[in-house]
Amino acid sequence: MSGQDIAVAVLGASGYTGAELVRLLARHPRLRIVALTAQRQAGKELGEVFPHLAGLGLPPLRRLDELDPAALDAVFCCLPHGTTQEVVAALPDHLRIVDLSADFRLRDPALYETVYGRPHRAPDLQKIAAYGLTEHYREAILRTRLVANPGCYTTAAELALVPLLRARLIDADAIIIDAKSGVSGAGRELRLSSLFCEVDEGLHPYAVGTHRHAPEIEQCLADFLERPLRIVFTPHLVPMNRGILATIYLRCTRGADARALHAALAQAYAAEPFVRVLPFGVSPATRQVRGSNLCLLGVHASRVEGTAIVVSALDNLVKGASGQALQNMNLLFGLEETLGLDVPPIFP
Amino acid sequence: MSGQDIAVAVLGASGYTGAELVRLLARHPRLRIVALTAQRQAGKELGEVFPHLAGLGLPPLRRLDELDPAALDAVFCCLPHGTTQEVVAALPDHLRIVDLSADFRLRDPALYETVYGRPHRAPDLQKIAAYGLTEHYREAILRTRLVANPGCYTTAAELALVPLLRARLIDADAIIIDAKSGVSGAGRELRLSSLFCEVDEGLHPYAVGTHRHAPEIEQCLADFLERPLRIVFTPHLVPMNRGILATIYLRCTRGADARALHAALAQAYAAEPFVRVLPFGVSPATRQVRGSNLCLLGVHASRVEGTAIVVSALDNLVKGASGQALQNMNLLFGLEETLGLDVPPIFP
Amino acid sequence: MSGQDIAVAVLGASGYTGAELVRLLARHPRLRIVALTAQRQAGKELGEVFPHLAGLGLPPLRRLDELDPAALDAVFCCLPHGTTQEVVAALPDHLRIVDLSADFRLRDPALYETVYGRPHRAPDLQKIAAYGLTEHYREAILRTRLVANPGCYTTAAELALVPLLRARLIDADAIIIDAKSGVSGAGRELRLSSLFCEVDEGLHPYAVGTHRHAPEIEQCLADFLERPLRIVFTPHLVPMNRGILATIYLRCTRGADARALHAALAQAYAAEPFVRVLPFGVSPATRQVRGSNLCLLGVHASRVEGTAIVVSALDNLVKGASGQALQNMNLLFGLEETLGLDVPPIFP
Amino acid sequence: MSGQDIAVAVLGASGYTGAELVRLLARHPRLRIVALTAQRQAGKELGEVFPHLAGLGLPPLRRLDELDPAALDAVFCCLPHGTTQEVVAALPDHLRIVDLSADFRLRDPALYETVYGRPHRAPDLQKIAAYGLTEHYREAILRTRLVANPGCYTTAAELALVPLLRARLIDADAIIIDAKSGVSGAGRELRLSSLFCEVDEGLHPYAVGTHRHAPEIEQCLADFLERPLRIVFTPHLVPMNRGILATIYLRCTRGADARALHAALAQAYAAEPFVRVLPFGVSPATRQVRGSNLCLLGVHASRVEGTAIVVSALDNLVKGASGQALQNMNLLFGLEETLGLDVPPIFP
Repeated sequence: MSGQDIAVAVLGASGYTGAELVRLLARHPRLRIVALTAQRQAGKELGEVFPHLAGLGLPPLRRLDELDPAALDAVFCCLPHGTTQEVVAALPDHLRIVDLSADFRLRDPALYETVYGRPHRAPDLQKIAAYGLTEHYREAILRTRLVANPGCYTTAAELALVPLLRARLIDADAIIIDAKSGVSGAGRELRLSSLFCEVDEGLHPYAVGTHRHAPEIEQCLADFLERPLRIVFTPHLVPMNRGILATIYLRCTRGADARALHAALAQAYAAEPFVRVLPFGVSPATRQVRGSNLCLLGVHASRVEGTAIVVSALDNLVKGASGQALQNMNLLFGLEETLGLDVPPIFP
Repeated sequence: MSGQDIAVAVLGASGYTGAELVRLLARHPRLRIVALTAQRQAGKELGEVFPHLAGLGLPPLRRLDELDPAALDAVFCCLPHGTTQEVVAALPDHLRIVDLSADFRLRDPALYETVYGRPHRAPDLQKIAAYGLTEHYREAILRTRLVANPGCYTTAAELALVPLLRARLIDADAIIIDAKSGVSGAGRELRLSSLFCEVDEGLHPYAVGTHRHAPEIEQCLADFLERPLRIVFTPHLVPMNRGILATIYLRCTRGADARALHAALAQAYAAEPFVRVLPFGVSPATRQVRGSNLCLLGVHASRVEGTAIVVSALDNLVKGASGQALQNMNLLFGLEETLGLDVPPIFP
Repeated sequence: MSGQDIAVAVLGASGYTGAELVRLLARHPRLRIVALTAQRQAGKELGEVFPHLAGLGLPPLRRLDELDPAALDAVFCCLPHGTTQEVVAALPDHLRIVDLSADFRLRDPALYETVYGRPHRAPDLQKIAAYGLTEHYREAILRTRLVANPGCYTTAAELALVPLLRARLIDADAIIIDAKSGVSGAGRELRLSSLFCEVDEGLHPYAVGTHRHAPEIEQCLADFLERPLRIVFTPHLVPMNRGILATIYLRCTRGADARALHAALAQAYAAEPFVRVLPFGVSPATRQVRGSNLCLLGVHASRVEGTAIVVSALDNLVKGASGQALQNMNLLFGLEETLGLDVPPIFP
Repeated sequence: MSGQDIAVAVLGASGYTGAELVRLLARHPRLRIVALTAQRQAGKELGEVFPHLAGLGLPPLRRLDELDPAALDAVFCCLPHGTTQEVVAALPDHLRIVDLSADFRLRDPALYETVYGRPHRAPDLQKIAAYGLTEHYREAILRTRLVANPGCYTTAAELALVPLLRARLIDADAIIIDAKSGVSGAGRELRLSSLFCEVDEGLHPYAVGTHRHAPEIEQCLADFLERPLRIVFTPHLVPMNRGILATIYLRCTRGADARALHAALAQAYAAEPFVRVLPFGVSPATRQVRGSNLCLLGVHASRVEGTAIVVSALDNLVKGASGQALQNMNLLFGLEETLGLDVPPIFP
């Protein structure tokens, strides 16, 4: 790439992941926002919808049909699940696209239809989409122009599990993922379950046994296990804005133990800027990654021989969504992956 | 018992469990608070230490050595772990005692020493102590005058697990308890880890593999399994004042499934006023029990055949501490267990 | 009244104030809930809408037109502002009614129309409605069968101000009320501004200079000042479920000072069970009244001579809504005002 | 200045303002951290004390007496109030110093002694210290090498008030500042009042009439009024990590009104990068500035003629402390004030 600016659009800028992308892009040295879309808010400035983003010199919000794709080099697609396929299918081929929805994550159209309850409407595109778990799919990402950015829960789980499955250190049929998320993961839609008083000062699991991220995790893990598998996955809603913590219960394969798991993870991520393996026995906290693209991993022995506990923490809006999307876009354009993402977390 | 008032003292009234006991006792029709102790705050009114408890006509805080045991019928002991044994040993035999500390929970003095790092200093008393998980130890409680009130995590886990082990529906060697607690469980001591800014807007596990409630849970479960076992138990700190949620991952024994687990729990607690089994597939939330002595249980199938998920929710300061203590005291005096505890939860 | 049960209905039981009334009524010794209405949720059990209220043996939710007024002695009306007038007008005369909406609070129909943007549709009823600030309108309440329960902000402000205006200790034209509220005051409607992520970890004023509680406060204060006045009132939204704190800035009249204000408040409320005046210079906190019908008042000198600061704290859902409604209903039936309301606050 | 790095030390890096400085400096293009001190934590890495700051390649924590001032160009002093004077006095003259404590803020040593309860121990230095409210003291700052960085409450109030007093638009003797702060303003010391359970889900004022920021505000305002004055100032503690909101009640001088105040503020800050005046009648929220160096100002008419309400919002750790400190240090070295500070706020 030359040193010229890369012109990007953010489609669906009125949601939390869209806003987070704008926050990150605001200080990116190469990517320049030239268009923002939001159907119901079209005509407004983004600063009216998200006052924290006022004063950044951004283009006004437009409807999708007002977009001029010829003026663009790349698109971040932050539209709701199920609405993205036709939009992406209508975009010209010269564009590099990172899609933050679930629409292109599941490779098998039959599985997509089972999980999302409708037939896939752009199966040809789905064939070329690369799964955007950057650290483990770089080669595939570099070969495509359409990245299916992973879900927040899935990123937290997969970063912990892929190296362990690759190294055959854990029993693939005994993986239990107990995950906890902040409320921004539910988006900005008006739902009773997202009201302050329905969330604050309490905790609950939801979608037990049925959450849509489970098949996504299984697909990714199967890529590295080289056979299908099923996992146990339980998400919980925690009264905080940001953050995902996945506490993962594992059985070690014969000869392996928690220390071996730790060593494998430490080795796998030694050169990665955004994944950090903590010293053995040290747990991460979500507040240690808030606002950053980091994923922290901790490994523990448990009281039961032959088992181990791996804890994964990230910011659902950054490494779990917009930050990883930007990391993928950097990769698509041959830029340093850390560009625009090299900021420390914010605490407290 | 006659209809006369029962004179009780709360030892250690300046902590959260002590204050919660006073809140509950304030409207108890038979138990009357005649003494409150707090070493460092002696001389003050409780309303100075806990303004929400002002105006209740309570006796002032005294030092322990100012206590007149002859004027008492019963004692709630809310002293810190490790300081209770000698205090209880010095109390006269006519008193019925519910101890909220961990001091008399572990029956084996060797195990106590291993877990708490010091020899037990009242092993004779430990022999007569009954474990106070009311719903499952009523007979033992009725035979003693010293109840070792269970821990908050342990109550949440044991209420879910005891009937399942009794019915031999689950693999006792594959129990995984992922537990989440509000901050009041850490008490009112000054610790960096309890500061608002160190807890708010984040989530983390702690004491992974080493928490002292694990041996306590194992002792209780072994009582009903009739052999020793080991569990995996991970506590997490959640930014909320009250509430414990335990998400428990289980393997069913041959022929059993999640529905069978649900049926067993529903039957076990059908007549219990404080334990409610929700319809199959419905999860509890901690905010549904806040301020009440309830424990809610939900049972779910998981994506993996032969496994099930049981979720248990209670208020750590009520059913997890002071409420269960009062339930036990009611039992010790032959009163209705629900006396003083029949209030709905408070939400939002 | 005889010792028989009093049959009450709660209209609009699916909102927070309705649910709070049910919580309080659940342990009331004389009032018995015989009907609950909720238009959109009709047919469900209240425990499906509010799981914390399951298991109380309540009647199912009905539509308003299914209500049998002949079976009732009294009605709590928790319907949205603007929808109550016709409902109340259609109820038979034998019913005693406490209305928690704003519909009957403003005596002047012209003012009502200005503030609420529509003509009043039951002006005859408005004439008989008594304003339900219990401590200061007891005589009027005892003469009527329709109580207009005050707003939450207004209760906090008026309890602090009425005795001071009565005693002519403060300049009525220099009253500034800076008020802060928890989020439950906004109700359970789906609004962007009530979403967890839009409220948590931040603070903001709203409706500055235009909030509808300002004319209500002015009407009440004018009753005791015996002339009209205008106040400055600014509400703020605080990331907490419950609680209102009003910090009130006052100029003392000649010869008066903060100590005189304190003395006047202490005297005014000496015999009141629900209003407590703290020692001079001590401030209340909303967490000291959570879940209770208490209002705490603190009085302070400021750095500027001739001025004083009065701080008022209450739980917006209890003394600011459902608790005061129950206090008024007790009064309407000649019961002890404290019946069903004599519980300590819950903390933490 | 040449393009060389400027070597800075952060003294007192184990508190929240020290950590926030490190976060901001981590991406500053010219200032380079070469030393960090923390008395009790000396020997550790900062990442052990603040895990969110791990991996930044920082020097280890040292004791103050291990500092080599000759290797430094500048010092940020984040030590506790009262301990800073002797430390700063012992530093060599070539260093430029921004002190975040209160030690050099009050120019009059007698006032300092009254407010802080001890004689000033470096009165000569106090004479050369410039008050660091950047937007209004630039000339003084440029003439000195020691900046007394303002308090968080004071910055919020002064940025709103200075232009209005300068323009003689408000009655200087009727200023009322009702301020609300997040908990990080209380620092990382172990205090009961900073515990999660003592702060969460509640709100309270503190230090009513006696807070130490009141004399500081008065000194600053007097600089522009050109005579002494007294203000009414009430701080409140809000359950959130960051953020200050000051709601300021004002009487306009004859002929002025809220619109005139708005115009004066808009003009005063038109060219300022960090102070934004919102459209008339629009209020700021603290969550709109979180993590940024912005101060937002809103101006409102009130219900009472001749009065106005100005609302000021900032992040207490950034514009209220470490961000403004960095802005001042940039100024001291002739750098762009925005260097290292040009990041959007983080929301949600």
